[in-house]
Amino acid sequence: MAELTWNRYGKSSVRLVKVRRSADPHEIVDLTIDVSLEGAFDKVYTEGDNAECLATDTMKNTVYAFAKADPIDHVEAFASRLVEYFSEKAGVSLARVHAAEHPWRRLHAHAFAREGGEEWTATVTCQDDKTSIASGLRGLVVLKTTDSAFSGFPRDQYTTLPDTRDRILATSITATWNYGDGFQDFGKRSAVRAALLDTFAAHKSESVQQTLYVMGKAALAACDGIVDIQIALPNRHHLLVDLSPFGLENLNEIFVATEQPYGLIEARISR
Amino acid sequence: MAELTWNRYGKSSVRLVKVRRSADPHEIVDLTIDVSLEGAFDKVYTEGDNAECLATDTMKNTVYAFAKADPIDHVEAFASRLVEYFSEKAGVSLARVHAAEHPWRRLHAHAFAREGGEEWTATVTCQDDKTSIASGLRGLVVLKTTDSAFSGFPRDQYTTLPDTRDRILATSITATWNYGDGFQDFGKRSAVRAALLDTFAAHKSESVQQTLYVMGKAALAACDGIVDIQIALPNRHHLLVDLSPFGLENLNEIFVATEQPYGLIEARISR
Amino acid sequence: MAELTWNRYGKSSVRLVKVRRSADPHEIVDLTIDVSLEGAFDKVYTEGDNAECLATDTMKNTVYAFAKADPIDHVEAFASRLVEYFSEKAGVSLARVHAAEHPWRRLHAHAFAREGGEEWTATVTCQDDKTSIASGLRGLVVLKTTDSAFSGFPRDQYTTLPDTRDRILATSITATWNYGDGFQDFGKRSAVRAALLDTFAAHKSESVQQTLYVMGKAALAACDGIVDIQIALPNRHHLLVDLSPFGLENLNEIFVATEQPYGLIEARISR
Amino acid sequence: MAELTWNRYGKSSVRLVKVRRSADPHEIVDLTIDVSLEGAFDKVYTEGDNAECLATDTMKNTVYAFAKADPIDHVEAFASRLVEYFSEKAGVSLARVHAAEHPWRRLHAHAFAREGGEEWTATVTCQDDKTSIASGLRGLVVLKTTDSAFSGFPRDQYTTLPDTRDRILATSITATWNYGDGFQDFGKRSAVRAALLDTFAAHKSESVQQTLYVMGKAALAACDGIVDIQIALPNRHHLLVDLSPFGLENLNEIFVATEQPYGLIEARISR
Repeated sequence: MAELTWNRYGKSSVRLVKVRRSADPHEIVDLTIDVSLEGAFDKVYTEGDNAECLATDTMKNTVYAFAKADPIDHVEAFASRLVEYFSEKAGVSLARVHAAEHPWRRLHAHAFAREGGEEWTATVTCQDDKTSIASGLRGLVVLKTTDSAFSGFPRDQYTTLPDTRDRILATSITATWNYGDGFQDFGKRSAVRAALLDTFAAHKSESVQQTLYVMGKAALAACDGIVDIQIALPNRHHLLVDLSPFGLENLNEIFVATEQPYGLIEARISR
Repeated sequence: MAELTWNRYGKSSVRLVKVRRSADPHEIVDLTIDVSLEGAFDKVYTEGDNAECLATDTMKNTVYAFAKADPIDHVEAFASRLVEYFSEKAGVSLARVHAAEHPWRRLHAHAFAREGGEEWTATVTCQDDKTSIASGLRGLVVLKTTDSAFSGFPRDQYTTLPDTRDRILATSITATWNYGDGFQDFGKRSAVRAALLDTFAAHKSESVQQTLYVMGKAALAACDGIVDIQIALPNRHHLLVDLSPFGLENLNEIFVATEQPYGLIEARISR
Repeated sequence: MAELTWNRYGKSSVRLVKVRRSADPHEIVDLTIDVSLEGAFDKVYTEGDNAECLATDTMKNTVYAFAKADPIDHVEAFASRLVEYFSEKAGVSLARVHAAEHPWRRLHAHAFAREGGEEWTATVTCQDDKTSIASGLRGLVVLKTTDSAFSGFPRDQYTTLPDTRDRILATSITATWNYGDGFQDFGKRSAVRAALLDTFAAHKSESVQQTLYVMGKAALAACDGIVDIQIALPNRHHLLVDLSPFGLENLNEIFVATEQPYGLIEARISR
Repeated sequence: MAELTWNRYGKSSVRLVKVRRSADPHEIVDLTIDVSLEGAFDKVYTEGDNAECLATDTMKNTVYAFAKADPIDHVEAFASRLVEYFSEKAGVSLARVHAAEHPWRRLHAHAFAREGGEEWTATVTCQDDKTSIASGLRGLVVLKTTDSAFSGFPRDQYTTLPDTRDRILATSITATWNYGDGFQDFGKRSAVRAALLDTFAAHKSESVQQTLYVMGKAALAACDGIVDIQIALPNRHHLLVDLSPFGLENLNEIFVATEQPYGLIEARISR
């Protein structure tokens, strides 16, 4: 006996660039969008009956058609309109739109340079007529050259790491925060981002964990409408190079940046 | 007011290659391991008190030390020993070890070629003294040149996709299955893999969804110890090239393989 | 004063999948093709005059149209036909087609699994009416657990590496070989590949350099039509983990596989 | 008969982060360095004799030791010192150091955010006692929403692309420029970068080729010390979405950004 106990389907990585040509100078929005649906689609799976299976190609077309009419001033609002539309389709109990926004910096009236790395994210979910909205960012790589320690941790038979009161701390910030019901002031995400960055920079850190926690508190303080924030900070280890074989002393100056392995610190801070 | 409502930390991407030199000919195991812990670590975050914060560097060392003693005949068993050890550390309520195994094919007594793409996965979790074990695979890219249709789906104002009774179906299989309590016969994963592949190949498909479902049923049939399986099948669209401008007919022969966007079909099938 | 002293343009990453449906069972060829042209295109650059600028979109269309008629039994022959066509276009002094072939393994009459990692390459160049053909492979990752040494190298004030008579040797083989005029027996590439692999596996290595050289000699021996072969072997270091802090001895059993930095050894061997 | 007709070896992807702690506030340099040597190393390959084979591990150590003493104010100067050192080693006829610099933006006295994407490059080569120096950049992604046309190109039986007088032009700039003998004013690279960007932005483009050429001329004009510049501009096609099936007109507003295939335009402009 086998039973279908959960299902989800949709279209992923829909690449959308909108030029707001009515603006002077032109403005652009650059998005990668994922649409997904859950619901009463069992017959598609179990009987090969596609009568209620909205094609993922149709989802893609819908995104482009909606983008024509929508100014996309805030991705969260655009995603909300899509989610509202999809949630009314036959069989749908949950509709979700996730968007990653790729920022561009203006060079000139009609020209832009892409900011690499960092992306803005937005996720809008409508489940059983209730909509929830989250914003976030990912790929924001930061480093501090001092004011970071890690000491006083337990030592067992497998511990070799020495205590340190001064190390490089480097990470790639991923954060997602949920808004309370009815929140629409999505421009606030810049204040949240600034709070995360400023706190990372200024904090005298006893651990990545402690820094993460104060960053989360600062984000909540920066925007009343946030109910909780989840942060992930991979610890991108910068190891001190041993120069002693060459008769040189390494006074926290020369490091090798490593990618593997990395510490991964995650937490949720709620109001 | 801000409160720490969830936390997790650990070491990720610990790269471990073990050569079983006592075997004749030599055997190798190639793993990428992630360790993570959840529990009563609030003071690390809120007070910068590291007294119970097992260093992630220590986790890494522990993996290597355990690998010396363990034959690693099955990754699931090796991960279970690690999880048992970590779950007894102070403060820990949940310990998890995830491993990706990179398969190598023997060339010669002491030489191997890496099979690209496909990886085996294992996840062992111990929460409140209860251990659960999952196996899986990812990156298994398959394609069928016929016996795949998609028709009879709903048509709305945004639908342009024509019905088709014959298309290429290509996907990259990701699957994870959970075993029932006490299951230890991890060599069965080959039978599960074979069931997934054979079913993909032989099924006359009305949709990716339908194929996914029969693949899941076949996996459950192939191994009594599995309680459920979750499968994700991205639909890697192969689009028919329009050769008509050149006076040529394209009888399902010439395709452009695309990466973006892609359909994403997911489901869980339970016994 | 500024002068255009060299130019090249073309279309890259044209993804082409051909299904040979007349074959029973079906066969597939999966290619990524780059087309490039050099020649008297100065006015395109210096005057914005596109009269002789064959559009790269047209190059792409040409690839698909030629793929309809061509069986693509050997990529080298298909690329030769394209190169011959493009070299007759106005202004062209050099036409080149590079193809990467992504191998698939048959599962079933109409189903295939993609071999990950390794790719076959072919480059055909026509310059001033002379055509040259090269074949190759890349991404063939191999490892040997013994029969690899590195000792007797010079020691200066920056040398810390100890001599070793037994280490893991791992690499990702990239090789390209040129055929003599008129060579058409492209199926020989399998024999070249086998020679590279067998030699890597069986050689008692004093260095990556020495292994590379014997691999190159074996390739020339395996196919009379090859005039030279260029091989690149990145040394993917597998470092012995120091288990002594845990009271354990590491007898070449436990390694950490690293990606950065890596040695890079390259050479050309000619007949 | 087989003969070794060319060889090169070295260490690649040496990751180096230097903190200039004597500076107030701290400054950082983040580099990925490749070292390679050519010369009379035949016996290493043909006889397994390592007596003159400077270990690539020693090359890595040398980079770190030199980084201790060197302020690395300009990567070109640091690479020159390394190249001078390596070129004096036994057997070396050519020594090359290539560096990619990963830029960071200051957030705070001791904190930085990594600029994603764009990297600065430098290549210093010493061959037979003659040193040549090149600087460059890569991964600088730019886009213009108008002032880009492509029309008047030849039409053959495979041409389907319509003429356009207004399209999106997007590319990722890679450029490398060579300095004349004795040039040391490496801070000029900012002026070269600005010239490339300003020209891309302001140019009314008839083709990627024409824009590339004026960018190259502007770079030469911005820095007297440059003798030539090579530029590669992949054309990252932004395709107009056909909204007509939905009764909507797409007035150059809604685009799909594609990655494959892409045009690739390259040229060298010399003084």
